[in-house]
Amino acid sequence: MAQKPSIPKGTRDFSPIEVAKRQYIISVIKKHFERNGFQPIETPSFENSETLMGKYGEEGDRLIFKILNSGDFLEKYNKFLIEIILDILSSHISNLKENGFEFYLGEKYNYFINENLPKIIKERFNKIFGSENKINEIQFSKDLWFYLKNYTDTYSNIEDLEKNEKSVGVSIFGEFYYKLGTKYVGNYISEKALRYDLTVPFARFVVQHQNELEFPFKRYQIQPVWRADRPQKGRFREFYQCDADVVGSTSLWQEVELVQLYDAVFSDLKVEGVTIKINNRKILSGIAEVIGASDKLIDFTVALDKLDKIGEDGVKAEMLAKGISEEALFEVQPLFNFNGSLTEKLNQLRELLASSVEGTKGVDELTFICETVEELGLKSATLNLDVTLARGLNYYTGAIFEVAAPETVKLGSIGGGGRYDDLTGIFGLKNMSGVGISFGLDRIYLVIEELNVFPETVSNVTDVLFLNFGDNEAKYCLKVIRELREAGVNAELYPDKAKMAKQFQFAEKKGIKYAVIVGETEMQQNIFGLKNLISGEQQNVTLQELKQTLLK
Amino acid sequence: MAQKPSIPKGTRDFSPIEVAKRQYIISVIKKHFERNGFQPIETPSFENSETLMGKYGEEGDRLIFKILNSGDFLEKYNKFLIEIILDILSSHISNLKENGFEFYLGEKYNYFINENLPKIIKERFNKIFGSENKINEIQFSKDLWFYLKNYTDTYSNIEDLEKNEKSVGVSIFGEFYYKLGTKYVGNYISEKALRYDLTVPFARFVVQHQNELEFPFKRYQIQPVWRADRPQKGRFREFYQCDADVVGSTSLWQEVELVQLYDAVFSDLKVEGVTIKINNRKILSGIAEVIGASDKLIDFTVALDKLDKIGEDGVKAEMLAKGISEEALFEVQPLFNFNGSLTEKLNQLRELLASSVEGTKGVDELTFICETVEELGLKSATLNLDVTLARGLNYYTGAIFEVAAPETVKLGSIGGGGRYDDLTGIFGLKNMSGVGISFGLDRIYLVIEELNVFPETVSNVTDVLFLNFGDNEAKYCLKVIRELREAGVNAELYPDKAKMAKQFQFAEKKGIKYAVIVGETEMQQNIFGLKNLISGEQQNVTLQELKQTLLK
Repeated sequence: MAQKPSIPKGTRDFSPIEVAKRQYIISVIKKHFERNGFQPIETPSFENSETLMGKYGEEGDRLIFKILNSGDFLEKYNKFLIEIILDILSSHISNLKENGFEFYLGEKYNYFINENLPKIIKERFNKIFGSENKINEIQFSKDLWFYLKNYTDTYSNIEDLEKNEKSVGVSIFGEFYYKLGTKYVGNYISEKALRYDLTVPFARFVVQHQNELEFPFKRYQIQPVWRADRPQKGRFREFYQCDADVVGSTSLWQEVELVQLYDAVFSDLKVEGVTIKINNRKILSGIAEVIGASDKLIDFTVALDKLDKIGEDGVKAEMLAKGISEEALFEVQPLFNFNGSLTEKLNQLRELLASSVEGTKGVDELTFICETVEELGLKSATLNLDVTLARGLNYYTGAIFEVAAPETVKLGSIGGGGRYDDLTGIFGLKNMSGVGISFGLDRIYLVIEELNVFPETVSNVTDVLFLNFGDNEAKYCLKVIRELREAGVNAELYPDKAKMAKQFQFAEKKGIKYAVIVGETEMQQNIFGLKNLISGEQQNVTLQELKQTLLK
Repeated sequence: MAQKPSIPKGTRDFSPIEVAKRQYIISVIKKHFERNGFQPIETPSFENSETLMGKYGEEGDRLIFKILNSGDFLEKYNKFLIEIILDILSSHISNLKENGFEFYLGEKYNYFINENLPKIIKERFNKIFGSENKINEIQFSKDLWFYLKNYTDTYSNIEDLEKNEKSVGVSIFGEFYYKLGTKYVGNYISEKALRYDLTVPFARFVVQHQNELEFPFKRYQIQPVWRADRPQKGRFREFYQCDADVVGSTSLWQEVELVQLYDAVFSDLKVEGVTIKINNRKILSGIAEVIGASDKLIDFTVALDKLDKIGEDGVKAEMLAKGISEEALFEVQPLFNFNGSLTEKLNQLRELLASSVEGTKGVDELTFICETVEELGLKSATLNLDVTLARGLNYYTGAIFEVAAPETVKLGSIGGGGRYDDLTGIFGLKNMSGVGISFGLDRIYLVIEELNVFPETVSNVTDVLFLNFGDNEAKYCLKVIRELREAGVNAELYPDKAKMAKQFQFAEKKGIKYAVIVGETEMQQNIFGLKNLISGEQQNVTLQELKQTLLK
């Protein structure tokens, strides 16, 4: 009966202190989202499959967790199996009838009457055989077999059977097997899937509720998402996303504000020295245009994105292998050594992309954002133009953001985002530009842990434990405890009259700072024995003093 | 391409105001949980199926959402199909060999070599046929067919086939079909399931982390759960549970504190006049014992639970129908008219159950809890002994709680809980008594809405909108906006330079109270046009005055 308990790979339990730390990060992000005028929404954990499928590419589809149709799944599934058999049988019987074969259900089947057989199946069966004979599910395979056997008996050997294009037996089994083994089953048995990110559900939300919303609509959403990724260090199958997006305006002020928002959040979290990398999809397109390889844009950006990992030679080799010419690489040579101030970089890009209308528009946009941000100033973050930034995703059309953790912490990206000009088009609402950013809660947690900048006050440990010396004392204590709780103290009573040492040990192990001792004497004298479990100091105090100490 | 967007039945989107109101309720509950020394944990949204299955009864199992195995599900599924075929084939071939039949794979199959065929399948196949012939998946059904045909050819007609116990063809198809159509498939394709409640995951958590925890362990957990229930008014397929439980102590002080906790939360939420109904499972058992129908305890409690709905006669009729005797009903007659003060009720029960050891223990427990709660007093709730309270669940062993909404609101139960003596036994950790309560977030929301007691301050609407008169003005405004945000004001800039009327309309529709107007004149004079959009009043103010007004 006893099972060794465990949780699915890639998922986590969170202890009280972990919950407290995560809640702290979330509360800071949330605070700044609201300061910036974003309002929260929440969407269901699972969406209809068609809402999610096809939105994240083939790889993404594979990583979406699908939910089995519930309740009557098996009944539906049985019907499905019978439907397939009937479909196949039906077409073959028609073929055979056309070729002069005769089929009938003999009298001996009449006793296989089963009123429980679903009406739809009976109707289908009757239609195929043109009779009112009834048949039950178990008997059905026998009948099928019977007809197959009759048919195959007309061939003297397997070679004949194989030569015949209408080889019923072979193809029935083959088709049946094939249909079962393919997606057909998958689609039939699952119509819902767990949220893969917050962007697609947001787009769905906007379209579904468009008449209730004011545009531009600024929303934030902090909820878990699920991905059937191979679990590895720092990558989980269930994790939180914290997204802020604006939909319904193309104004570049949004980008400016989002950069400031990143800066405000990380400064508040004491994660100083992050780099906010910015790029623009139009610049990437412009580059591809200039080198005469617009059709190879994805190859180009994917290769360029590897500059840090495989170096200039590696990237060039990959580009050449993908069919980008030597001349093209010569044209974009500055990109392989792209340094200097924001203004210098922008000037280089403007020159490089002078011949590209789209590229120049990208440079214009970036210039506005970077100059404005520089003028307004950032608290602790640095804005950096990174022309290798492509973020894999192909739906960005304007700005692309990524936040790198402070250099002392080797943790890579702790946030990202960008602008997508047609956020809601897939759900039928055209011309809605969206721009947004996301915070990576798990990575940020690790960064704060490594920098050791969680505030000391982040904790949900009880402030004081009242020891239990018996029912009378406990009742007396509970009255005081109630007063303390109302005043804002987290207080608890040890539930059992256990040995004092055990009760003290309990408090210490839990990290509770104070213990209160109330025995008969204390009750009579209207005082409280207050022990500081860190210093070991103990003194008798009045209720007033007790409150004052605990409320500090 | 465009899809009409919708969400699965029984799920909900939450708008900003709904999120704010839900967060308000959760924050109050959370505050009191922590005041009472409960600490938060979080568990994964999905658990291994074996953790959940069989814990909620047959009906519960049916209502658990199962997750399809991810990624290589189809590959696994194909292997599964082949495995079944091979299993069946293998046993029949053995039978036939024993009966003198010979089987071999002819040379003509040698060209069906497919190195991609999974090794395990090839091995199995070779084992069956005792040769090294290789075969591919598509060909496999043909081979199967071939052998079936050879075999069935030895019978002259279907009757012979049916008579023969080893009728390979019939039974292969039958077995294959049967295995596919049953749970076997269900188990194979799903190994994870969405959390159905918070109690079982909590029990799993306690056992899994027992060495890291201090007992008694007081935890709270506020997370969504999922049930494939038929959606109906006020019942959803995804909803939050807010649970507080103590595990590792049998002390009745926990029950006393939990009653007080209910009272504190509902008083704080201004939901006054709730009734906390209490009962004890031992009393129910005692009653069954007294009437000599211990084996009919479930029938008895189920019937008794319907007293409100079908009345005394109805309940009695049901009990008689279930085989409970006339004499028994006479014995428990007081229960059908069970009124008076807590003390009076307890006295009646003590008399009624005098002959039952277990029943008397239940009365003792209830007496302690009720008397202590009465002495400590409740703020706005009423404690009531309700002997019909059974709460369907069969795992409670001591106290049973249920909270009824104030009588003016017809909404039934808004919370419940109880004690279960062997919370973690199912996972191998014996003798761990647990007691806990749960708050029904959705119902509580409806009650507060109906009583109209959501605080006016529950909102996440932006405090002030700065109108946008162009890039220069916008940049000027953003500097001020940043100062305001740092001071704690939720402020936003209208992103586009739109017509003033449009911008004002936007603010009004969103419920933003103030608009700030900064044009060239205001910039020069260092003042701000501040318009109260509720009163319509507009005046010029300094930065200092602006801050003061907005921080009010």
